[in-house]
Amino acid sequence: MPEVETRTYPVEQLVEFAVRVLESFAVPHDDAVEAADILALADLRGIDSHGIARLNAYYGLLREGRINPKADVSIVRETPSTATVDGDNGLGLVVGPKANRIAMDKADEVGTGWVTVRNTNHFGIAGYYVIEALARDQIGWAMTNTSRIMAPLWGAERMLGTNPIAIAFPGLKEPPIVIDMATTSAAFGKIEMAQRRNENVPDGWAIDREGRPSIDPDAMVDGGAMLPLGSDRERGGHKGYCLAAMIDILSGPLSGANWGPFTPSFALNHPDPVRRVGKGIGHFFGAMRIDAFIDLEEFKRQIDDWIQTFRNTRPAPETDGPLIPGDPERESEAVRRSHGIPLVMPVVDDLRDIATESGIPFD
Amino acid sequence: MPEVETRTYPVEQLVEFAVRVLESFAVPHDDAVEAADILALADLRGIDSHGIARLNAYYGLLREGRINPKADVSIVRETPSTATVDGDNGLGLVVGPKANRIAMDKADEVGTGWVTVRNTNHFGIAGYYVIEALARDQIGWAMTNTSRIMAPLWGAERMLGTNPIAIAFPGLKEPPIVIDMATTSAAFGKIEMAQRRNENVPDGWAIDREGRPSIDPDAMVDGGAMLPLGSDRERGGHKGYCLAAMIDILSGPLSGANWGPFTPSFALNHPDPVRRVGKGIGHFFGAMRIDAFIDLEEFKRQIDDWIQTFRNTRPAPETDGPLIPGDPERESEAVRRSHGIPLVMPVVDDLRDIATESGIPFD
Repeated sequence: MPEVETRTYPVEQLVEFAVRVLESFAVPHDDAVEAADILALADLRGIDSHGIARLNAYYGLLREGRINPKADVSIVRETPSTATVDGDNGLGLVVGPKANRIAMDKADEVGTGWVTVRNTNHFGIAGYYVIEALARDQIGWAMTNTSRIMAPLWGAERMLGTNPIAIAFPGLKEPPIVIDMATTSAAFGKIEMAQRRNENVPDGWAIDREGRPSIDPDAMVDGGAMLPLGSDRERGGHKGYCLAAMIDILSGPLSGANWGPFTPSFALNHPDPVRRVGKGIGHFFGAMRIDAFIDLEEFKRQIDDWIQTFRNTRPAPETDGPLIPGDPERESEAVRRSHGIPLVMPVVDDLRDIATESGIPFD
Repeated sequence: MPEVETRTYPVEQLVEFAVRVLESFAVPHDDAVEAADILALADLRGIDSHGIARLNAYYGLLREGRINPKADVSIVRETPSTATVDGDNGLGLVVGPKANRIAMDKADEVGTGWVTVRNTNHFGIAGYYVIEALARDQIGWAMTNTSRIMAPLWGAERMLGTNPIAIAFPGLKEPPIVIDMATTSAAFGKIEMAQRRNENVPDGWAIDREGRPSIDPDAMVDGGAMLPLGSDRERGGHKGYCLAAMIDILSGPLSGANWGPFTPSFALNHPDPVRRVGKGIGHFFGAMRIDAFIDLEEFKRQIDDWIQTFRNTRPAPETDGPLIPGDPERESEAVRRSHGIPLVMPVVDDLRDIATESGIPFD
């Protein structure tokens, strides 16, 4: 793998810059801080595509007036254990945490809380929300639909997003199990990376614009599509499609947000969908108080046992054995908290452009 | 594909036989009827591995006193939106429906209901439970852990079951979307079929006893393992492992059931796990009242639109385009309700053996 030039920044510097940029659009201080924290957590956990690299896109959308910086997030329907939230076209990074807190508050009251959200925008890493729930001894769920990039099995066009799902379980002495996964077979960032390096991608990641399987990243980017987890019929591609559909429906039709191929695009330079079937994109959050089901400490002990049992799995040849979900991200976080966050130069250049345009210093 | 000899039975005949067999062990009539209905629904929907073919295994477990025919299913902990249920070592086909009804009743009261179940046994097809919720205008969820057959990514041994998840969404004029999927890359039945036919299986389904990828079905059956959805690291096998882990934890540690490699086996001829970490196997049910989130008819209209939109996806070459989840099963059900259920001769022979031993007629 060729070395990529990077520049490393302390996380605090990136957070401060993001806060000031967001505040310059009149995003309220507390909202800006939480939004910046979500971006920073992505960078800390090694999910670079969802971190400060996205500030440029949020900046563009705010500058063009496409996102409401002072969104009035409201509950439009509720029961003791549910709510439907309208995000008032706010930043997903602002709407998401508020909706997630509604779910957690309801869990405190009646055992669980389930919140579907419409009229919102991209909310960062799904993992952020479920990590929040851990602090309240709850099992958090987070899902969102996203703009189309995946073909359903046997389709020749983009109909669904990468539609991630996250859930987390706390250990007692062990660190928590944190699951945060897209429902495509691979991350789009890996296709872009292969494209930049002029390399092929593995079979099972993509189709070309005619719907034929392709290992050429250009063919995917140029009107092709990503494939769902499972890739093809033989290996269960219908299952990845089912999961993406489930997340789309819980986020879209259930909240009154757009869904499927009509989910609006995140980036300014992408065309708008041909139809509008709802408001904005959609999220879905869940929170379950653990002691609603079982003694809290007993559960955490069992999770410790689960983790130790799975760590002791006999390893497959040429591997160190199975990881526990969340291991790689936690290791990244430990390193980057102390050593800083390496940004590739195109991201650094974007941030410098924002600095120049906004007058907020960054170097 | 070589023709397999089958004999076809009206579904009513299979249900009646199953009811009488279960009643002969003092399973209460209503419980026996519902259990038989679950088996029949699997056969009707073409999921032959989970239908009347399993009666022999339930019969053996009941005969050996390993399952309690008159289980006293009880709630051991609850909040307005949750319950933890102890299945008293009953048939999963009896415990499952009762626990699912608790979830649906709670949804009627407070918007959603979430029930984890311990001390239970295999509950048939997960799809049954979520179809039940449709009749109450609820979105149902069903999951269960099962005895170990899948290796986690980078593991060389069986640590998790096929751990299925099901969820369903009702349409207005369109039939419902019904998702019911195992979290392995393929069904074990397909590996057994390849074994009988002396054929290889596709790459990505299995490993051998050393943990090496294998296309030999004998190598999987003889101490190897199935692979999670996604198959390998490149194609997202860690994601299938995450999903199976999520389902295992919601069903096992959250309820106090066994989990992971310690989940007890369904069949009499399999060895017991080396450790006991809870009671029986575990299920997890959810029910969400649709009108807790959005106007019911509006939701169903959106689902109709979703279905029509996805049916109109441009098809990939040499396909008829994407299916809607639940399509194949619904088509099977329409045919088999009127034309009967074809059983392969080994299953017919099993049923005849039960008839001989029990004195309950079957031919």
